[in-house]
Amino acid sequence: MLVKTTKILVAATLIAGLTTAALAKEKVYKWKLAATWGPTLSPHIDAPRNMAKMVEEMSNGRLIIRVDASNKHKAAFGILDMVKGGQYDMGHTASYYWKGKDINTLPFTTMPFGMTTPEQYAWFYYGGGKELMRKVYKKHKVLSYPGGNSGNSMGGWFQKEIKTVDDLKGLKMRIPGFAGEIMSKVGLTVVNIPAAELYTSLERGTIDALEWVGPGMDIKMGFHKIAPYYYTGWHEPGSELQFLVNEKKFNKLPKDLQRILVTAIRLSAYDLYIQNYDMSANGWEKMKKDYPNIKIKTFPKSVMDLLKKTNTELLNEVKKGNPLLTEILDSQASYQKKAREWTKMSDYIYVKDNLK
Amino acid sequence: MLVKTTKILVAATLIAGLTTAALAKEKVYKWKLAATWGPTLSPHIDAPRNMAKMVEEMSNGRLIIRVDASNKHKAAFGILDMVKGGQYDMGHTASYYWKGKDINTLPFTTMPFGMTTPEQYAWFYYGGGKELMRKVYKKHKVLSYPGGNSGNSMGGWFQKEIKTVDDLKGLKMRIPGFAGEIMSKVGLTVVNIPAAELYTSLERGTIDALEWVGPGMDIKMGFHKIAPYYYTGWHEPGSELQFLVNEKKFNKLPKDLQRILVTAIRLSAYDLYIQNYDMSANGWEKMKKDYPNIKIKTFPKSVMDLLKKTNTELLNEVKKGNPLLTEILDSQASYQKKAREWTKMSDYIYVKDNLK
Repeated sequence: MLVKTTKILVAATLIAGLTTAALAKEKVYKWKLAATWGPTLSPHIDAPRNMAKMVEEMSNGRLIIRVDASNKHKAAFGILDMVKGGQYDMGHTASYYWKGKDINTLPFTTMPFGMTTPEQYAWFYYGGGKELMRKVYKKHKVLSYPGGNSGNSMGGWFQKEIKTVDDLKGLKMRIPGFAGEIMSKVGLTVVNIPAAELYTSLERGTIDALEWVGPGMDIKMGFHKIAPYYYTGWHEPGSELQFLVNEKKFNKLPKDLQRILVTAIRLSAYDLYIQNYDMSANGWEKMKKDYPNIKIKTFPKSVMDLLKKTNTELLNEVKKGNPLLTEILDSQASYQKKAREWTKMSDYIYVKDNLK
Repeated sequence: MLVKTTKILVAATLIAGLTTAALAKEKVYKWKLAATWGPTLSPHIDAPRNMAKMVEEMSNGRLIIRVDASNKHKAAFGILDMVKGGQYDMGHTASYYWKGKDINTLPFTTMPFGMTTPEQYAWFYYGGGKELMRKVYKKHKVLSYPGGNSGNSMGGWFQKEIKTVDDLKGLKMRIPGFAGEIMSKVGLTVVNIPAAELYTSLERGTIDALEWVGPGMDIKMGFHKIAPYYYTGWHEPGSELQFLVNEKKFNKLPKDLQRILVTAIRLSAYDLYIQNYDMSANGWEKMKKDYPNIKIKTFPKSVMDLLKKTNTELLNEVKKGNPLLTEILDSQASYQKKAREWTKMSDYIYVKDNLK
């Protein structure tokens, strides 16, 4: 089909003197995207699918992106390599999964005690964040964009109430990433368990606690049926996903398709944040209705202080000898300090004044 | 230029048998947008400008939108009529400006004691809001889209501290819209003063108080130099602007340009929210540095209770005999109740736990 159209256009060009731009415009680009997520992990998987639909419609079918969920490519944590190597043109994933390969990718998802979602988007687009992310991914020859924010993550489901620092000691918990390192340092036994086995592990007491995302996604996992305490968050205050794009492939797209792709990427990211807000509101409403005895808890001050102190210590360790990571974390910290003042005098005080 | 290209294409079509779709694709659409805002009112005016730039780039110059600020068309509050009548293809404005023409347009900007920005976007895109807005504007033959959110508006600048309900009586204040009606009902003298005269009016005591937006926009007005009390907000917790599009003109666009237009509209709206967040953070930092004696205040509970009660009374009055407005306001209230639970257990408690 493509070949035929091109041939016709070549003929027309020769006869009617059309520019090569008009010719190039008819070329159809077929791309593939690999997502870290499974085919039903909503809202995560919805962002690349919505993005692909927007791109196809806006480009009038000139750029078609096939979205492969993890069941297809079987490499949920190989996205960066596959995009870098060109097996996939682009990916949808989370930046902090690559901290083992490149520690500088860590801060672009979220940081414990870090920025809320609007604060982080403001830092990213207007406070120097996107320039720093570009710098980090440039050496991987990959372009990186925000991929949607799952908002404030809950601290997790616990079988027992945490009243003191001592209640944490020896607790078996599933909590991955940097937050897991903090928890490990304060005395928990941090375990890694596949998602499909989490419910049974919590039910049978193989683990005492776990964190997942928030009520919108947790409700499908069923944890609210078997654990009475739902702790508020501290470790992932605004988890941003990422779209990764092979730089060479991107550069081969005509300018208009480049702009279409980036615009669809950016819009689907914001949409995911809002979709997740809605899912969380509905998820919590349903949980509370079906299981009215679930208790929302916040860690006591002594626990929070210890987590904060440990976070700072660990951050100072990873910053050592790494000027780029230091630059990123310092940029986030100073922006957060400034933006938090606005958050406090706007949405925070407004919600406080309207508490029932 | 357009005519010439078309002629060449007609010839090519006749000779090479190209489809009419390929022919239609080359047509250049030149549109005009009228904004309520002046040419320097950032971030408001930035949204339509960014939108137009995205559209031009994505469409490869097939849809060009000229953005006219209010100094050009001299009809800041005639946008709906001009878009409806086709003098302009589209507009950028705020829905609540049309409440005099159609009371049902009121709730799509923001409501006193209403939803925060993320709550409202979630209601709009996932909770039935956009369907209701479409219903309201359909009878004006105008399509309507979110146009950017200026977040939580501050309650305003006051020369004297408000300690009791009595302190409000007789106060002269500039506060427009529905909030102005509430303030009038609780005993203030509500006045309407052009923006250019606000500073002098506050300085000379012609008025005792005024509200504008938030620190990002207020700082350019200079109010912080002449009023010591900066009150937190209650009346516009998440002001959403609107893009309006003439329905007939929209329907004449090819499908791909329609999608390009709507995508650019939606993205520039989210971007305005984030841009304003950044401006507010920076504005407040600078105000506080230059004028360290400014006091952030929140109205006492007695005042807030009175404002809430009056708001409910006024809403009940406007709802009377208006089933569509009732449907919209009830939809917002029930969504807000649900979403606020999530706000409280996520961002609210998170910020609270991290207060210094």
